[in-house]
Amino acid sequence: MIKTGIIGAAGYSGLELIKLLLDHPEVEITRLFGFNSAGNRIDDVHPLLRGLITNEIHVYDEKLIAELDLLFIALPSGNAFPFVIDAYEKGIRVIDLGGDFRLNNINDYKTYYKHEHTAPGLANIAVYGLSELNEQEIKNAAIVANPGCYSTSILLPLVPLLKENIITKDFISIVSYSGTSGAGKSVTENMMFSEVNESVRAYKIGKHQHIPEITRYLLKFGGSDPNFSFVPHLLPITRGIYTTIQTKVNKSVNENLCINLFTEYYSDSPFVRIVHPDIPEIKNVSGTNFCDIGCTINNGIITIISTIDNLIKGAAGQAIQNMNIMFRLEQTEGILKCSKKQYLKVQSI
Amino acid sequence: MIKTGIIGAAGYSGLELIKLLLDHPEVEITRLFGFNSAGNRIDDVHPLLRGLITNEIHVYDEKLIAELDLLFIALPSGNAFPFVIDAYEKGIRVIDLGGDFRLNNINDYKTYYKHEHTAPGLANIAVYGLSELNEQEIKNAAIVANPGCYSTSILLPLVPLLKENIITKDFISIVSYSGTSGAGKSVTENMMFSEVNESVRAYKIGKHQHIPEITRYLLKFGGSDPNFSFVPHLLPITRGIYTTIQTKVNKSVNENLCINLFTEYYSDSPFVRIVHPDIPEIKNVSGTNFCDIGCTINNGIITIISTIDNLIKGAAGQAIQNMNIMFRLEQTEGILKCSKKQYLKVQSI
Amino acid sequence: MIKTGIIGAAGYSGLELIKLLLDHPEVEITRLFGFNSAGNRIDDVHPLLRGLITNEIHVYDEKLIAELDLLFIALPSGNAFPFVIDAYEKGIRVIDLGGDFRLNNINDYKTYYKHEHTAPGLANIAVYGLSELNEQEIKNAAIVANPGCYSTSILLPLVPLLKENIITKDFISIVSYSGTSGAGKSVTENMMFSEVNESVRAYKIGKHQHIPEITRYLLKFGGSDPNFSFVPHLLPITRGIYTTIQTKVNKSVNENLCINLFTEYYSDSPFVRIVHPDIPEIKNVSGTNFCDIGCTINNGIITIISTIDNLIKGAAGQAIQNMNIMFRLEQTEGILKCSKKQYLKVQSI
Amino acid sequence: MIKTGIIGAAGYSGLELIKLLLDHPEVEITRLFGFNSAGNRIDDVHPLLRGLITNEIHVYDEKLIAELDLLFIALPSGNAFPFVIDAYEKGIRVIDLGGDFRLNNINDYKTYYKHEHTAPGLANIAVYGLSELNEQEIKNAAIVANPGCYSTSILLPLVPLLKENIITKDFISIVSYSGTSGAGKSVTENMMFSEVNESVRAYKIGKHQHIPEITRYLLKFGGSDPNFSFVPHLLPITRGIYTTIQTKVNKSVNENLCINLFTEYYSDSPFVRIVHPDIPEIKNVSGTNFCDIGCTINNGIITIISTIDNLIKGAAGQAIQNMNIMFRLEQTEGILKCSKKQYLKVQSI
Repeated sequence: MIKTGIIGAAGYSGLELIKLLLDHPEVEITRLFGFNSAGNRIDDVHPLLRGLITNEIHVYDEKLIAELDLLFIALPSGNAFPFVIDAYEKGIRVIDLGGDFRLNNINDYKTYYKHEHTAPGLANIAVYGLSELNEQEIKNAAIVANPGCYSTSILLPLVPLLKENIITKDFISIVSYSGTSGAGKSVTENMMFSEVNESVRAYKIGKHQHIPEITRYLLKFGGSDPNFSFVPHLLPITRGIYTTIQTKVNKSVNENLCINLFTEYYSDSPFVRIVHPDIPEIKNVSGTNFCDIGCTINNGIITIISTIDNLIKGAAGQAIQNMNIMFRLEQTEGILKCSKKQYLKVQSI
Repeated sequence: MIKTGIIGAAGYSGLELIKLLLDHPEVEITRLFGFNSAGNRIDDVHPLLRGLITNEIHVYDEKLIAELDLLFIALPSGNAFPFVIDAYEKGIRVIDLGGDFRLNNINDYKTYYKHEHTAPGLANIAVYGLSELNEQEIKNAAIVANPGCYSTSILLPLVPLLKENIITKDFISIVSYSGTSGAGKSVTENMMFSEVNESVRAYKIGKHQHIPEITRYLLKFGGSDPNFSFVPHLLPITRGIYTTIQTKVNKSVNENLCINLFTEYYSDSPFVRIVHPDIPEIKNVSGTNFCDIGCTINNGIITIISTIDNLIKGAAGQAIQNMNIMFRLEQTEGILKCSKKQYLKVQSI
Repeated sequence: MIKTGIIGAAGYSGLELIKLLLDHPEVEITRLFGFNSAGNRIDDVHPLLRGLITNEIHVYDEKLIAELDLLFIALPSGNAFPFVIDAYEKGIRVIDLGGDFRLNNINDYKTYYKHEHTAPGLANIAVYGLSELNEQEIKNAAIVANPGCYSTSILLPLVPLLKENIITKDFISIVSYSGTSGAGKSVTENMMFSEVNESVRAYKIGKHQHIPEITRYLLKFGGSDPNFSFVPHLLPITRGIYTTIQTKVNKSVNENLCINLFTEYYSDSPFVRIVHPDIPEIKNVSGTNFCDIGCTINNGIITIISTIDNLIKGAAGQAIQNMNIMFRLEQTEGILKCSKKQYLKVQSI
Repeated sequence: MIKTGIIGAAGYSGLELIKLLLDHPEVEITRLFGFNSAGNRIDDVHPLLRGLITNEIHVYDEKLIAELDLLFIALPSGNAFPFVIDAYEKGIRVIDLGGDFRLNNINDYKTYYKHEHTAPGLANIAVYGLSELNEQEIKNAAIVANPGCYSTSILLPLVPLLKENIITKDFISIVSYSGTSGAGKSVTENMMFSEVNESVRAYKIGKHQHIPEITRYLLKFGGSDPNFSFVPHLLPITRGIYTTIQTKVNKSVNENLCINLFTEYYSDSPFVRIVHPDIPEIKNVSGTNFCDIGCTINNGIITIISTIDNLIKGAAGQAIQNMNIMFRLEQTEGILKCSKKQYLKVQSI
């Protein structure tokens, strides 16, 4: 059994981690940590968990992590540094669901996250946890920087197209829509039900902290540094990210070529589903670790759609996928709701 | 492995059954049946299932059920009769998620369901599948009539109070609110998004088909035939039932007495959670097989709140709970997202 | 032109007042007051108002109200006292949309509102602003206590039934559901979109501050002090209150008798609509000052449904209706979206 | 009084027309026409209208339109032809809220609308009703083709930028999100609450019927035929369109230049509001005839946001704005909820 701890158990990603780990056959939830929530039982903080788990939430204490094999950190960005440093020194592996170790350029970090980076020595040791594209590095990582939710929905479809030089690099339009749980549990007026319901708004245009992350990993995985513009929006739903990317195709490619490229590129990736000619919908990935990708081409312009559940493939699910990779389990263990592989071939009578 | 078939695989309850059974270690989904959907693959009908199961949906054929151990019927009420008759004759056990076998009074059936009952001979053979209250009969049932979603949320809290003579019988007010998935997938104007969103409406006051079901089983399990009035409402959410019951208490009982009664009555029921002094909320049971129950007493009037996920405890989850009982598995197998019992005791350092 | 001021212009009721008053032919919005919002233009605080009004929000100052004919106070309960005292002393009429002057029992006020009542001398001078039932007193009121939203939806249907001795008084079950705007703009975790969406919860059972208000005015208008239990719930919609009342009928009354009673009782009330045999729905009153009322009777139990828009008939709309009464205008001026009475008779060719 | 008729009174745009016209001081709603709804009273079809209007809905009959000054047609596209022909022959002016007269290329019409165009002789007589850009032609039009909702949200911001050669023409990315009422009242499975709620989906990528309309009028008003790609999406809200446009800027323009251009271009347009540095939100235009426009520029890419209420500025509101223009009334009559112009200058003490 892998002994795990979670810092930030009282948040939405923390809850999602617990829900998934409770059903994971190889994992023990050994320690839960919190700040304001410390001293409470986890099922009092998340009443959904009543009857499932009764662990107490503790104030972080280095003695309490000594026995752990893995520490998940599910905190708002800017808060992970001391815990990652401490765990690293103790030789405990870490998966950080926040953004503190996704960038190695400390100036970019400060610009976009509005915090100082207080562990620059670890910035290059951390490994980016986009499971499908970085499996080899994740396997042996001491620190995994779990990807941003928007970034996941953008990198998975764009990387293969950039690697194969199928799309132009001078201008890529990226428009994403997110449910409210992506903003976490911080209490602000503009996240109140009456403010969000029956509305939509773009925000942080050109300033979102996932921009340098996307730039960095398009270069690393796609070998390309395209000029893209990313516009995130807030949706009146709780879960889900929907990304619509448009750009010109470089050569005379057609939809089938792209669909085949995606299909082949992700043929060993159980969580990437290529959807065609249907169009992905949030409800088809909600509650799952899947990323659905589709595309169409008209008049030399490709429209690429991808969708994920921001709390699962965009956070807790991908974190567990990474844990599975780190501990040499099957990638799907505990997060693919299908224990029976036989269904995956067409059955006839 | 229990070989199962599902009639009505294309509906919402059918989808929920498949999602749950895919993760059930003792079950094989052997046959899927449909009407308009027949000839398609199940993952084309429910794109959520892509990558999980590829079975074809068949037109019902008695040869295709021969090998089955259990047949789930997830059809709108009025459609189950021929299939139940056929399965019963073949000795295949059946769980009907619709309402066709919940009443043994054929006239009541016709009055409330607006159909003829065409299998009256089986009406008394069928066993009511309210798992917590009828386990012994369910164990050996040939035909299980899975309870209505509203009925489940009403019977579980009312039965112990009636048995113990705690509440009056001359007038019980029952007000329930349901998400839209309770209406199934039938396409009608009044279930369109633009009609349901940002609104609420009561419907079928005094005429709902769960009324005779509640009456029958309050008598059977609670030993009482109280005068209740049941008002169902439609909510602009997809999943969940919220039931608020009010009536006078007979004697000088207080909240603690009632809470203790509930707690004791359901002490062996892993899916009934007594919530106090907190108040149940739909979001705490959404996606689970739990029924949360709470109560308060003021001025001699008790307010009882209960909540379930209508597609799980109110349909597919309870059906699988009943299957587990019928096949001598643990009740929780496949439907309690917690494979590790150790969490259920408070852990200290 | 009636010169009006609004204290609490930055809140939801303040916004609704402004939207309605902008279109009122006899009113000038002369002064807007706020606290944190003071110094801003009202259309910067409520961007919906851009292009409609540009008034600045001021810190309250007694000199700024000198010229006013009427002061609306749209603050959370507990905050109106000094402003009402000041206006009263200056002879400026006041309509308080909060709860501070709805009760004359100071102890009840403290018990339910958790504040001291600091203007007890005015508690008996204030007139309850339930327009349909208290028109004569409102006409000459110096201070109008605008009714609570729940109270409005409950008193309008219950009063006629109690007056005519049609229902029992030993137990009335009142279940109400409200949209989130009823909670105002205060920022709390439990009103965040992610917490409210796709859920429902009851709250303040037996403790809601509208309970003594309902009690007081059932006695005043209905001549009766029945034993009722009131359970408010929070709904994932922005606007609207839905109230479902159940009780036993005293005599052999039927639906038609009750419908006729309602119809006659409210025959001069343009904002009360009796709905039968249809059932009221929130969407039919949303954005209007209407209260829709319907009822059914089964087995000696009457189910009464009423619905209002909590921000209009439950707050700003009724406040303007009261203003119209106070200033001898037509009750409907500015709040009935129909300037042409001829439509109200059936037109034939 | 302008005597008006409405064909399609039972639909959502029909309802919105009635709600607005009821409050319009210069208009009489003289005739309502319907198909399945004929024979009913309009307030039985739309219970929201109870107490406001009681007109009967008639089967269309040429005798019943003889006395009219103006006929609104609010039907699904493909159904307006015979009525427009009839009215035109009788000299009665028409505003068609559907798409049947927005294109003059009959082949394009057939390709995108999947119907034959059966009034080609009138296709060039009809005048496009984008009020802000085509006022002179609208004034004297016999037939006004009211713009599509998406088209309105796209043309208003793009035309000034194209006219001034500020943006590139080789690729413009247009991503729009619409509430469900845009799909009208037709009853289909994919518009059911349970299918739409908590999800998002793109649809008709490269095939939407507004594409040739946008092309035609970008050329007419903007003098340009750019290569754009338009991706419409469905949102789980009832009302509102949100459009996010991205393209490269041609020259070294900055945000202020664009904002000033918009501001000047629409300085006489009371319904276009330029929002900066804030970002438009659906809730700020919901229930109004406003179009809010904003923009930002980063790395040579401009992001333009615009938002409207699809049933008002995208349908009924703009139709009335056009009526006002046709009948020489103030553009704002009946649709700007502000009868008092004095608020539009900053008031100081």
